[in-house]
Amino acid sequence: MYGYTPNKEDYLKRLHRIEGQVRGLQKMVEDDKYCIDILTQVSAATKALRSVALGLLEDHLGHCVAQATAEGGEVAAEKVREASEAITRLVKS
Amino acid sequence: MYGYTPNKEDYLKRLHRIEGQVRGLQKMVEDDKYCIDILTQVSAATKALRSVALGLLEDHLGHCVAQATAEGGEVAAEKVREASEAITRLVKS
Amino acid sequence: MYGYTPNKEDYLKRLHRIEGQVRGLQKMVEDDKYCIDILTQVSAATKALRSVALGLLEDHLGHCVAQATAEGGEVAAEKVREASEAITRLVKS
Amino acid sequence: MYGYTPNKEDYLKRLHRIEGQVRGLQKMVEDDKYCIDILTQVSAATKALRSVALGLLEDHLGHCVAQATAEGGEVAAEKVREASEAITRLVKS
Repeated sequence: MYGYTPNKEDYLKRLHRIEGQVRGLQKMVEDDKYCIDILTQVSAATKALRSVALGLLEDHLGHCVAQATAEGGEVAAEKVREASEAITRLVKS
Repeated sequence: MYGYTPNKEDYLKRLHRIEGQVRGLQKMVEDDKYCIDILTQVSAATKALRSVALGLLEDHLGHCVAQATAEGGEVAAEKVREASEAITRLVKS
Repeated sequence: MYGYTPNKEDYLKRLHRIEGQVRGLQKMVEDDKYCIDILTQVSAATKALRSVALGLLEDHLGHCVAQATAEGGEVAAEKVREASEAITRLVKS
Repeated sequence: MYGYTPNKEDYLKRLHRIEGQVRGLQKMVEDDKYCIDILTQVSAATKALRSVALGLLEDHLGHCVAQATAEGGEVAAEKVREASEAITRLVKS
């Protein structure tokens, strides 16, 4: 059980949609579509991925804090450090 | 012929790899992998998409400028506006 | 007392440096410096601001989790929602 | 004369406003304001800096293309490479 478990089906649906977007991008390149139109779709796929990441992060933080309440400080500090590193990677991606 | 045409095969290869990354994400969610590990992979896929976008943009600008040299100001100004809007969408995605 | 309180002096020092960077940008514009060089400095200032934000966020999450351990679920859930919204704003900025 | 020269006063005004935002951030830290409120203001300042960068970039591209039309290919290709690197730095900042 993780923070995202209750929303698993929703994340899978969103990731399937993103897979479709990426396949759509391949088709656009194959069909020699106009570069700016491809870029618009790349931005849409990137936005959708970001949104999945922000959702996972929120679910994770909620789970983290719940665990911290149950298990106390040591574990919690490590979790916070780990989440912060994930946020940094996300912001820089 | 667009700016990206000479690099078409390379873009297709990269987009196939990104499709694989997104499918990998689905598998991670299905297999109940640890949230932070999923986030790391989302960041990697996002980074790969960004990199495709930056490549397409550079190819497009090169093409734009070449066209401007050939066709002159009116067309060029419109192209610059269009490219700037694409950059804004990219930065905000 | 907030999460960032122990690092207050460090944040002030970094914000003073960023203020200096922004004043440097004004001077570059006044002195008609080359656009690409100005853009490089804008990116540096943006990066420094992002880094302050990521630090404040990490300090805040640590503090949050500590509070959650002490005060329990209700307060904690609200804090997580609030932090997630701040992360979303940061990612989109 | 660069691409941004006609909008110089506007950029200076915006950079002065951003300097004010950064000084406001210092005051918030000094006055022990709530971390999430500081983060909201950091995001606002970051957004304002991004917007300056996007404006400078659009002005620069317009100028670039105009120069390319006048001076031809060699110079233009170098300018495009330079602009693309600036966009990459901006996206990653």
